[in-house]
Amino acid sequence: MSQPPVFDAGFARQFEELLRWRRDVRRFKRDPVPAELIETLLTQTKLSPSVGHAQPWRWIPVAEPARRAAVQESFSRCNADALASYDGERAALYARLKLEGLREAPVQFAVFSDHGTARGHGLGTTTMPEMLDYSVVAAITQFWLSARVHGLGVGWVSILDPREITRALDVPAQWKLVAYLCVGWPEEDCDRPELVRAGWETGG
Amino acid sequence: MSQPPVFDAGFARQFEELLRWRRDVRRFKRDPVPAELIETLLTQTKLSPSVGHAQPWRWIPVAEPARRAAVQESFSRCNADALASYDGERAALYARLKLEGLREAPVQFAVFSDHGTARGHGLGTTTMPEMLDYSVVAAITQFWLSARVHGLGVGWVSILDPREITRALDVPAQWKLVAYLCVGWPEEDCDRPELVRAGWETGG
Repeated sequence: MSQPPVFDAGFARQFEELLRWRRDVRRFKRDPVPAELIETLLTQTKLSPSVGHAQPWRWIPVAEPARRAAVQESFSRCNADALASYDGERAALYARLKLEGLREAPVQFAVFSDHGTARGHGLGTTTMPEMLDYSVVAAITQFWLSARVHGLGVGWVSILDPREITRALDVPAQWKLVAYLCVGWPEEDCDRPELVRAGWETGG
Repeated sequence: MSQPPVFDAGFARQFEELLRWRRDVRRFKRDPVPAELIETLLTQTKLSPSVGHAQPWRWIPVAEPARRAAVQESFSRCNADALASYDGERAALYARLKLEGLREAPVQFAVFSDHGTARGHGLGTTTMPEMLDYSVVAAITQFWLSARVHGLGVGWVSILDPREITRALDVPAQWKLVAYLCVGWPEEDCDRPELVRAGWETGG
């Protein structure tokens, strides 16, 4: 064990800036992202907390055109259904939102929770089995912040049918889809959520 | 909008140190935590990502002795059941683990996901309703890191019956328990998970 680090007031201020400038990004440049940077970020995710130290996260890169097309089709269907559920002004506003960067983001991941893992020996999941999925969300949250440290944007797309994504990616039956992530260089940096700027929801 | 921050290599290194030294803490000093620090951390959680910008997290401080006793009783019952599910060496190992700091941690929160919130207008939750709970987990993860920046430890206790905790805290019926958190000054700092040091699970 090395010496515990001390985080001073300067670091605390910068850390708060990091939280303030992390965005859910939907507008990406098409410039490639160095593979080593993605590797560094994925290695860092192993530092995330997980129930029983089970590390149930499974990061599946989605790069093949056929697989990306399947994801885009699932989004189109689910987004059309979602739009149909709104009326009037709210529907018009929804129709104007850009909710994903599936066509532009150079790096994409489907992130699963492995319900079949033996790691962790079930510790902490008996009364709250959802803890496995929550561990995956914690890792994604840390990945999101780590990416922003390096200027990379992440967008979490949930307007998808998990069954369609799981089928398209041909993963083990015990893996549950937790997130679909778009990763790349953002077109712009901003300290306000896009849904606030677009008038969908208030800030604060 | 102010100027976007630039995070240099020095910050990136310190940020990785933060990830490396964040622990799930079960051994707390009983020293009080300044209320202003907790307030600062809770204010920062509003910078967390949430589906539809719904901000569905509800942080309920648990301080009254009767409520803390109800949580401790729930843990004792659930932990005895968990112990009974293991055999031989694994059971002996489980029995030796310290899995919570419910008696020592000066600050404790039950964190709920408000399934009844109107915020977000349902955006992003139609096909994946669990996104509301995941948003709460993201906020907890950021809180955990923010706390560690200030030297504070956080322990997530999931060996509890969510129905018992929800009943003891008398919260609205549409709130779902996501986490019970112990917060305080850790007895020690370490860069290795306690479950790895105790031999429950391997590192990496």
